[in-house]
This record gives sequence, C-alpha cells and structure tokens, in this order.
Amino acid sequence: MPKSTESAEDRLIARYFRPLATAPGAFGLIDDAAALTPPPGCDLVLTTDGVIAGVHFFPDDPPAMVGRKALRMNLSDLAAKGARPLGFLLSVALPEGFGEAWLGAFAAALADDAAHYGCPLYGGDTDHTPGPISVSIFAFGAVPQGKMVHRSTARPGDRIVVTGTIGDAAIGLQLRRERTLARRWGLSEAAAAQLENRYLLPQPRNALAGAVLQYASAAIDVSDGLVGDLGKLCRASSVAADIDVATVPLSDAARAAIAAEPALLETALTGGDDYEIVLTLAPEKLDGFRTAAAAAGVAVTEIGGVQAGEGTRFLHEGKALTFTRASYSHF
Amino acid sequence: MPKSTESAEDRLIARYFRPLATAPGAFGLIDDAAALTPPPGCDLVLTTDGVIAGVHFFPDDPPAMVGRKALRMNLSDLAAKGARPLGFLLSVALPEGFGEAWLGAFAAALADDAAHYGCPLYGGDTDHTPGPISVSIFAFGAVPQGKMVHRSTARPGDRIVVTGTIGDAAIGLQLRRERTLARRWGLSEAAAAQLENRYLLPQPRNALAGAVLQYASAAIDVSDGLVGDLGKLCRASSVAADIDVATVPLSDAARAAIAAEPALLETALTGGDDYEIVLTLAPEKLDGFRTAAAAAGVAVTEIGGVQAGEGTRFLHEGKALTFTRASYSHF
Repeated sequence: MPKSTESAEDRLIARYFRPLATAPGAFGLIDDAAALTPPPGCDLVLTTDGVIAGVHFFPDDPPAMVGRKALRMNLSDLAAKGARPLGFLLSVALPEGFGEAWLGAFAAALADDAAHYGCPLYGGDTDHTPGPISVSIFAFGAVPQGKMVHRSTARPGDRIVVTGTIGDAAIGLQLRRERTLARRWGLSEAAAAQLENRYLLPQPRNALAGAVLQYASAAIDVSDGLVGDLGKLCRASSVAADIDVATVPLSDAARAAIAAEPALLETALTGGDDYEIVLTLAPEKLDGFRTAAAAAGVAVTEIGGVQAGEGTRFLHEGKALTFTRASYSHF
Repeated sequence: MPKSTESAEDRLIARYFRPLATAPGAFGLIDDAAALTPPPGCDLVLTTDGVIAGVHFFPDDPPAMVGRKALRMNLSDLAAKGARPLGFLLSVALPEGFGEAWLGAFAAALADDAAHYGCPLYGGDTDHTPGPISVSIFAFGAVPQGKMVHRSTARPGDRIVVTGTIGDAAIGLQLRRERTLARRWGLSEAAAAQLENRYLLPQPRNALAGAVLQYASAAIDVSDGLVGDLGKLCRASSVAADIDVATVPLSDAARAAIAAEPALLETALTGGDDYEIVLTLAPEKLDGFRTAAAAAGVAVTEIGGVQAGEGTRFLHEGKALTFTRASYSHF
C-alpha cells in the first residue's frame, strides 16, 4: 500500500512513540500486541496509574513533566514492591487541536525516562477525547518468584523506615497554586522552587528496589500521604504503629515552611505525591538495609515501630496527632 | 485502623471490583500491585485499548455494554495473536456525580465477561475526571515462547480467511444514530436489532485462538475495518492481496441493507468494530484450519490470496473498488 493510506494515528505513533519502543518484543509498535519473554524464575509485578489534566496536573504544566510524572508514579509502585522495571504500555487521550508540540515534548521526556529507568515502551493506544488530556500507564516489572513485597506482611516488633523526605510535594503544590505563599512563609526563591519541583517531578526510589526486596517485611509507596499510606499498610497487616513525628525526615525548605505556618505539618504528613517508600523490617535487618541504601545513594530514616493491635499513632510533643483528612482520595 | 478511615475510593474498589479479582496474584486488590507467575515456556502477549464516552460509545449506552466492549476489544487482540487470556488491569475515570448505579452495572457485566473468558482482574486505578467517562484496559495473555502470531509474516501464495461476518457493526452504528434508516432499508425490527447489537457488543473470537496459533502465517483483528486492517497486515508483511468482494461474508441483515443502499458496501468493508480476525495461511493448511474452526464453532470464509508486490485490491464485479476512507482513524 502506498504510504498515503497510513492513518494520522499511525503517523503520530511512528513519529513520537516508536523511538521509545526499544524492546524487541515491542515489534516497533507495528503489531496489535507486544510479546514479553518473562525473565526465568520471576513473577511479573503489574501496576497501573495515570494522570488527568485539571485533576493530577495543571493544564499548563510542561508536557515533559506530565510524561515523566505519569511513568514515575508507576515506577514508584514497582520500587515499593521490590521489582525491577521491565516496560510499560501507554494510553493517551488528547483533546482535538492539542498541538503536536505538546506530544513531541511529552514523548521526548518519556523516552528519556524510559531509557534512564530501563523501562521501554511495549505498546499503546492513542485517542481523541472531548475531555482533558489523560494519560494512563500500565507498568510491569520482575521479582524472583513468590518474592513480591506486600503491604500485608508487617509484623509486631518491626521497625518502620521511610526514604528521602516527606511533605515537600504537598507543600510544593500549595506554592504551585499560590506562589505568594513563599514570601509569607519566608522561603527563598530556591527553597520554593525546590518544593514545587518535588510536586512536578517525582523521584521514584527504584535504586532501592533490590534492598527493599532483600530486607523489607512489608512496603508501600507514599503517594497519597504518609499517614494514609502507612495506615493502609497497618490495616492490611492487622498491626498497629507508633510514629515519632520528630523523626519524620523533612527537607530544610519544608522545615522552614512549617516553622512559619505550623498547620503545614499536617499538610506534609497527609499530603500526596511524595513517591517515597515506607517499609517495615525486623530490627536485626536495619544495619544491612542502611548499608544497602547508602550504596544505592538513597537516604533512609527510622521513624517508628510496629506493634500488635490496630491504629497508627503519630506522636508529636507527647501527644497523638489527629488529622482532619488522613489521605488523599479521588472520591 | 477503624473502618471509617478507609477512603471512598477504597470502598468503591472493594464493593464493585474486588469480586472480579479472582486470581491469587490480585491479592484482593489490597496491594499497590499484582503478581503474575507466567505460565512455564510462554511469552506474555500485552495489549491495551479503551473507550471514551462520546467517542467510542454513546453516553446513554447501557453501562453493561460499555464494560463488556472495553474488555472484548482487548480480548479480540489477544485472539488474533493466538494468545489465551490471563487477566487484565483496568483504569476508569468517572465524572463527578456519575452515579454508583452506573458503576455497579458496569462492574457486574465486566465480572461476567471476566469469568466467561477466563480473564480475571488483577488491579486498577479509579479517578474522577472533569471529562467524559473513560475506560482503559491492559490485557495480557500467553502463547508458547516465540509463537505470537504477527501481522508481518504473511507470504505470497497464502490464502486469506476471515471469521464471522463483516460490516454488521458499521451498519449497526448508522442505525444506532438514526433508527428510521431501518424502514428506508426495508429491514425487519429483528434484523435492525441484530446489526445494532453487533455494534454494541463485540463477539471476540477467542475460541479460535488455538487454531490461529496452529495454522495462521499472519493475523490481525478487524477493529478498524477490513480494508484498513488487511492493508496494515499487507504493509507490515510487504505483500499484496486480492480480495474477491463477492466472497466476503455478510449477514442476511447486512446483505439486505446493502441491497437497499449500495453505498453501504463501502461502509461494511471499511467501517470498524467488527472484532473478527483476518488471517493468512498456507493453502495446504486450509483444511486443517477449517476443521479446527468448525470444532470451535466459528464460521470462517476464504476471501482471497496473498501475492508478491504491494497493495490490497478489493475486486467487485470485475473492477477494483476504491474507497473514500480506508479505515477508521482516531486522528
């Protein structure tokens, strides 16, 4: 058939997405489906997450950030399960007249992340929509058979550890909405930009996946807020937890903002988009885990312990905090 | 944690989607991710497809039909690749105030299809959207390693076979838009309903997947129209094809509509949503394939042959048809 019979959809896929389809089983995106030969002795870990303009990102956010965020949300789930990424499928719905420049910048950034995280595109689906831009990603990774790290397997006596810093993205979102808050909170331009950037661009902890697999008794990625996500882990494991709020790792910028506006402590603990990992592990495994985390270049902080019972208590200056909203929920 | 801390999202998932998550590796949908132990010696076949209200279905289509169609579109891709279904992930975006009755009917029908086709839910993602209802599905199946049936492997000399009947859904879509056409075309109520139903509810040919795997040299599912999809297969295979239009299988209802309105022949050949399979195979394999198809209860019809060269010709009363639009494209 002459080239002119190729549809506009085929042309968009060839131009913007074929460069991401580097795996042999993606067949250059010319087939109906992809083939994946599973790594021997492994289970596949499957997850899906997505973003919608006006819900998960601002319509004027740079398309590169949208592409990276959509993939990294999924990569964070794989990291928390101890899985190494294998690839992803992409479903994109674009408004009429969206402009190809948007798609070009989106795909280029996604290509960059796909290469960086070793997570190539295997296939996808593009459509027009009368609604806002929507991006869904289905990501898959590998763990040794039967070894996926669960939410539901924390044990009384375990210690609780969290990666990186908590709350930057939630405070950054407030700055993204109302930049004058930076002045009110006495933040430097650099500090405000750092917080906003944590909201725009997750830094998933895939470098730590091997250590999570080796040492964690249970883990969950912190995407809907530390309070809510740790609550989910405890509920799934039928255990209780005490967290010493003074030990929860905060960036200098977040600490400065909270000092100026104490209500931001709740924002930090319950806000979403951290893309850190909170995990539990037996006390005797702490040293080994710390060494592995240092080797992976990821900061980790012990913030509390697991007990028999139910409920997660966040202890602050001798009292258990109560929160108006434990966790981000879409409903 | 007391139950009251569960989010509304968790409640919706537990109520409507947990019943579909019958695979052990879905962990009852309480984890961040699912685990799939790949069948030994198999490749996974991965595909994604979705529907958006106002684009792929009418906003007032029954939610049960929307759920079934979204899954069956993906099942059809697996069937055309010779894969048996293993499971799927689901991403749903719902407008504010969508009404839980919609979700209940959608999920119940999806559960029914998941059980019928042996394709359980492994996980998902639910969000609110300011746009229309959107459903994306990521389905995965299994084929013996290296055996996925491709688009790109048709050979000169092969015969071309199609399943079921072609064009019913495209004509049914016109009836769905303008029901008075039934009278103009002289169709009975039953005939009009049958065509509309082919549009609303695909009947993917998963019963034939084993025969496709065993006998086909190449295959593609007919979702964007026979002309366009066979064109894609020929282009990917670098071959030409001649189709004898008189042999293309039509239902009695479609045949009656085309007799009344000859322009509907082009609609039938180029319209989408057939969810049949068009495949190529060596002539000596035709008998074996026919026997296997009969055993599977799927009608199959030989419609032409593959040649060296390029281009697909649809020969009708001694002339090659030309089409104003070869294939459905979303762009």
